[in-house]
Amino acid sequence: MTEPVAAIILAAGKGTRMKSDLHKVLHPIAGRPMLLHLIAAVDTLAPARTVVVTGAASAQVEAAVAPLGVATALQAEQLGTGHAVQQAQNALAGFDGDVLILYGDVPLVSPETMRAMLDRLQSDDAPATVVLGFRPADPGAYGRVIADRDGRIVKMVEFKDASPEERAETLCNSGLMAVRARDLFALLARVGNENAAGEYYLPDIVMLAAADGRASAVIETDAHEVAGVNSRAELAAVEHAWQQRRRAAAMADGATLIAPETVWFAYDTAIGRDVTIEPNVVFGRGVSVAGKAVIHAFSHLEGATVGEGASVGPYARLRPGAVLGKGARAGNFVEMKQAVLGAGAKANHLTYLGDAEVGAGANIGAGTITCNYDGFFKYRTKIGDGAFIGSNSALVAPVAIGAGAIVGAGSVVTRDVEAEALAVARGEQQQKSGWAGRFRERMKARKAAK
Amino acid sequence: MTEPVAAIILAAGKGTRMKSDLHKVLHPIAGRPMLLHLIAAVDTLAPARTVVVTGAASAQVEAAVAPLGVATALQAEQLGTGHAVQQAQNALAGFDGDVLILYGDVPLVSPETMRAMLDRLQSDDAPATVVLGFRPADPGAYGRVIADRDGRIVKMVEFKDASPEERAETLCNSGLMAVRARDLFALLARVGNENAAGEYYLPDIVMLAAADGRASAVIETDAHEVAGVNSRAELAAVEHAWQQRRRAAAMADGATLIAPETVWFAYDTAIGRDVTIEPNVVFGRGVSVAGKAVIHAFSHLEGATVGEGASVGPYARLRPGAVLGKGARAGNFVEMKQAVLGAGAKANHLTYLGDAEVGAGANIGAGTITCNYDGFFKYRTKIGDGAFIGSNSALVAPVAIGAGAIVGAGSVVTRDVEAEALAVARGEQQQKSGWAGRFRERMKARKAAK
Amino acid sequence: MTEPVAAIILAAGKGTRMKSDLHKVLHPIAGRPMLLHLIAAVDTLAPARTVVVTGAASAQVEAAVAPLGVATALQAEQLGTGHAVQQAQNALAGFDGDVLILYGDVPLVSPETMRAMLDRLQSDDAPATVVLGFRPADPGAYGRVIADRDGRIVKMVEFKDASPEERAETLCNSGLMAVRARDLFALLARVGNENAAGEYYLPDIVMLAAADGRASAVIETDAHEVAGVNSRAELAAVEHAWQQRRRAAAMADGATLIAPETVWFAYDTAIGRDVTIEPNVVFGRGVSVAGKAVIHAFSHLEGATVGEGASVGPYARLRPGAVLGKGARAGNFVEMKQAVLGAGAKANHLTYLGDAEVGAGANIGAGTITCNYDGFFKYRTKIGDGAFIGSNSALVAPVAIGAGAIVGAGSVVTRDVEAEALAVARGEQQQKSGWAGRFRERMKARKAAK
Repeated sequence: MTEPVAAIILAAGKGTRMKSDLHKVLHPIAGRPMLLHLIAAVDTLAPARTVVVTGAASAQVEAAVAPLGVATALQAEQLGTGHAVQQAQNALAGFDGDVLILYGDVPLVSPETMRAMLDRLQSDDAPATVVLGFRPADPGAYGRVIADRDGRIVKMVEFKDASPEERAETLCNSGLMAVRARDLFALLARVGNENAAGEYYLPDIVMLAAADGRASAVIETDAHEVAGVNSRAELAAVEHAWQQRRRAAAMADGATLIAPETVWFAYDTAIGRDVTIEPNVVFGRGVSVAGKAVIHAFSHLEGATVGEGASVGPYARLRPGAVLGKGARAGNFVEMKQAVLGAGAKANHLTYLGDAEVGAGANIGAGTITCNYDGFFKYRTKIGDGAFIGSNSALVAPVAIGAGAIVGAGSVVTRDVEAEALAVARGEQQQKSGWAGRFRERMKARKAAK
Repeated sequence: MTEPVAAIILAAGKGTRMKSDLHKVLHPIAGRPMLLHLIAAVDTLAPARTVVVTGAASAQVEAAVAPLGVATALQAEQLGTGHAVQQAQNALAGFDGDVLILYGDVPLVSPETMRAMLDRLQSDDAPATVVLGFRPADPGAYGRVIADRDGRIVKMVEFKDASPEERAETLCNSGLMAVRARDLFALLARVGNENAAGEYYLPDIVMLAAADGRASAVIETDAHEVAGVNSRAELAAVEHAWQQRRRAAAMADGATLIAPETVWFAYDTAIGRDVTIEPNVVFGRGVSVAGKAVIHAFSHLEGATVGEGASVGPYARLRPGAVLGKGARAGNFVEMKQAVLGAGAKANHLTYLGDAEVGAGANIGAGTITCNYDGFFKYRTKIGDGAFIGSNSALVAPVAIGAGAIVGAGSVVTRDVEAEALAVARGEQQQKSGWAGRFRERMKARKAAK
Repeated sequence: MTEPVAAIILAAGKGTRMKSDLHKVLHPIAGRPMLLHLIAAVDTLAPARTVVVTGAASAQVEAAVAPLGVATALQAEQLGTGHAVQQAQNALAGFDGDVLILYGDVPLVSPETMRAMLDRLQSDDAPATVVLGFRPADPGAYGRVIADRDGRIVKMVEFKDASPEERAETLCNSGLMAVRARDLFALLARVGNENAAGEYYLPDIVMLAAADGRASAVIETDAHEVAGVNSRAELAAVEHAWQQRRRAAAMADGATLIAPETVWFAYDTAIGRDVTIEPNVVFGRGVSVAGKAVIHAFSHLEGATVGEGASVGPYARLRPGAVLGKGARAGNFVEMKQAVLGAGAKANHLTYLGDAEVGAGANIGAGTITCNYDGFFKYRTKIGDGAFIGSNSALVAPVAIGAGAIVGAGSVVTRDVEAEALAVARGEQQQKSGWAGRFRERMKARKAAK
């Protein structure tokens, strides 16, 4: 039986380098605010409590996490990481397990790494704290962690205070920690702010524990996992790293990505086996694609369900509620929203299907538009199995086209059509012989006169 | 006069890491199954015979190569590469030239390299076999080839059996070989399977020939050329390498690719001089683009012929049978299929031209749809030279619009229009004053009531 | 007070490796001919005169620079860089300041670097000339610059004449120079052509000045800045470098680029703060995007103005004169040209707005087409505030839809609609019961008979 776990996520600093009115931790990666990526990872540990420490734009952050049942604690003044963690003390009152300290702008830490930190904290040598270290390509000005071969920390040192030998050490401090709750707040109470910035630094608890004769431990993770986001360029870099991993996973699971670097997944995209994805496809949230489906180039999907062997695009835009049945086809310049294409049904060209239900095997001609909105309400269009909608038709909802019915090309259908009937709604064709020639003469003369 | 040539292509192993119902060698690169890339390269050597050794999913592979007049031989059990090659013996009965041994999942070996292998086999020192070597960035666990300065093989050694000195050797065995037919099968008959896997290994023939006092030779090629495909990620990597070479060739031939990394060619794409290709263009099979044409961003072409100085896209989809004459234009959100735009003709916006012939200089208005399908048959639309089709028209095929005729906007044309005539087919416009205001009041009340 | 400045830009050599009918220096980077990038950089120095030395395809180059008020001088024969510069002597008659010598195919030299060259020329040790040096990744066959620690040139040497020690030097000559006008032409008059090519070399003036006891100086810049364009591949590489810088700048200024490597800017694109740009967006010339706007994937903009908080795409094509007011939306498969969407107005689907003015809050239904062209003239469509255009309507310009009016779906509007009125213009709907079933029987029989 493992110890109960709580997480404190620091999200007070706004990140001025983002130059944004949106708080840094709410900028999305793969379609989800980065803070929510982190909370989702924490949730896999089934934490007893999660506390987000807010500061700048706290209302934005509180609103974002409110639906998740996560506590927040306000850090009114920015007095350092140690001070920030202290703000979570009330929210953790009565909690007596292990605490993970995370950062809202270091969003891609894996559950496995979090678990490894907690396991290390519970290991036989009972470290006072566990620090997550990493070895960046360029250690630069990161604080260094000096440890023995068993990962017991000898010293934590800021780069500016480090000796040349210490600077030569490549293991750096990510800032992430695991500490028992009772230790954490007792140690923090002893942290001072006698430094140039006048701030309370969280890593000081490592040396305070050491002074008590209690060693801390460091475990190591990949530098990519603890990449932080302080600018839009770093945001793009983290997004890129996330996408690269997701693309590799999709291929490993049996999907063909012709140009993987041009496919963008959302955090929750589900892709089946033997699916082919052509170049330049964007998945928004909530998409699942069943096996053997083909997503052609330049398609954009969000909230859509694509059935087995179905074909999407090129240039299809599937919006939330779009559902393609088995073998159905949504072709070029086709938009679907809250619309179902039954098994084998086709809407191949220049079509808008909104709030519509299309039966199995129906054929929606090029240029068909469901007129689903009157400026106030949305209405539904129902098209029966095997119906044939002639090209360039407008179907004015609410309207139902019966099974097997045919709508003549260019019709504006305002009333229901019964099954197996033909409906035509268009003007009569008239011809004026020679008119075009005379018109052109007139226009040429007018052009010449200009 | 060179020796007659035969090729044996091993394609028995299915490749479980692909996680696919499609046999590995049938996965496409640049729009063509990888096995067919290899056969096309072999074909440039005018081989007397080509034999594909099948195994897993043999029916798929046989069906794919049947149209090419290539023999197949079934390896019913997977007993190693030596055993696989032996299965081709019957299909090569009576053949007495040189044999190339290739792999269906190593698809991008060039004809020049194949020729170099055969030339080496015929060189004065008459090697018993010729092995194709390569130097990978990371030699890892590849089998090593120990050779003297003249490329005569001293030893072939599996990585696991190699000494530290041998492992330090960077020349690796690709598995590809050239051997005289009479030697090949005589040597293979002596290969045993006394090894952990109980398999018959093709490379063993090198040491068997050496035991007879006949040295083999190794020639070297670039590692990229012998990249194998065992997973979707490797498939994507080989596709990428192929595309990079093709992009460079297009630029060297005088085309401008603004963002070459975002243009995807098919194996048979033909691009003329002073063609400009904007970012994000996908070429399917069978496309040729004449000089000075511009392919704008986000275009998708397959089976299309683009004339000199013509303009395609952005967002044009040209499907098989699309032909643009000199200076013709197919603009945004325009789809063409089995459709010809005459010289200087324009279809600039939101149009579907299917089974259509558009005369020189004709103008197809925005939103025009050819209604070419009645659910059973396809019918043709003919539009004469200089005709003007008003916007949002539907042309119900079979139908002909005469030269110089004008079709009024929003018409549904169901009968032929004579040359120089005006045709209009639409409803009368009616107005109900004040209706909109009253409607809005009603709707607002209904919304408020909800 | 700084010296007056003139620039000589060499643009005589056509660049046969481009394989183009267009002169090399006129090939565009970021939507602007590379020569014009260079002239724009020069213009920031407020030069007294700029002279472009033309040769091959001189008419093309002259036409391109004519609107800029830049002088040209013809180099009829290609007798070397020294000879080329001499051709500018007449155009600089009477000019007595400092001269920058630049190359039309080295387009991305920054104003800061040009200024640094001029400042060095005016520095206390008064160098006879200033050479711009760089350190390429592979110095290869570039001419080397041997200088002392203060950047005073000891020797300039062609690679082929260089000793092994000189070849080990990594500082190379870009060819760019700054020289006082009076020195430049006096020195050039003394340059001979006793060399294998029989050409007059500009760098010889450095050694001629040195022979007079006057040292030259070298300053150094980044190799990327002096990258030259001699092939389409180099053109693509320079375009890529330009785009990378521009993308980084956009992010630094507070825009989110989800996949920066898939966004292409033009030289004059203006992007506001908190703008989000999704993957695959192409900006042509003349675009400005105000703060908090979202440019969705697969959008293509040129000459467009996007207001605060407006939403574009996915798959929107904004052509010159497209203007989106605050919070307006142009959605998927929507094209706008010389068209204004007022604040909060929406055109969300499959629409062409050309030569149109749409009032605030108006709603343009899916499939709406403005019919703005009769083959000779363009006409305007005006849509009043809060109007509602039903889906699949054609608005035949010139036409005005009054404020608050409603147009019924599928209408072809040819006459003005008064404010608050309802306009409907479509055919009557007719139904033939059972017709579809009988039709299908007939067609099936016909298919069977084939």
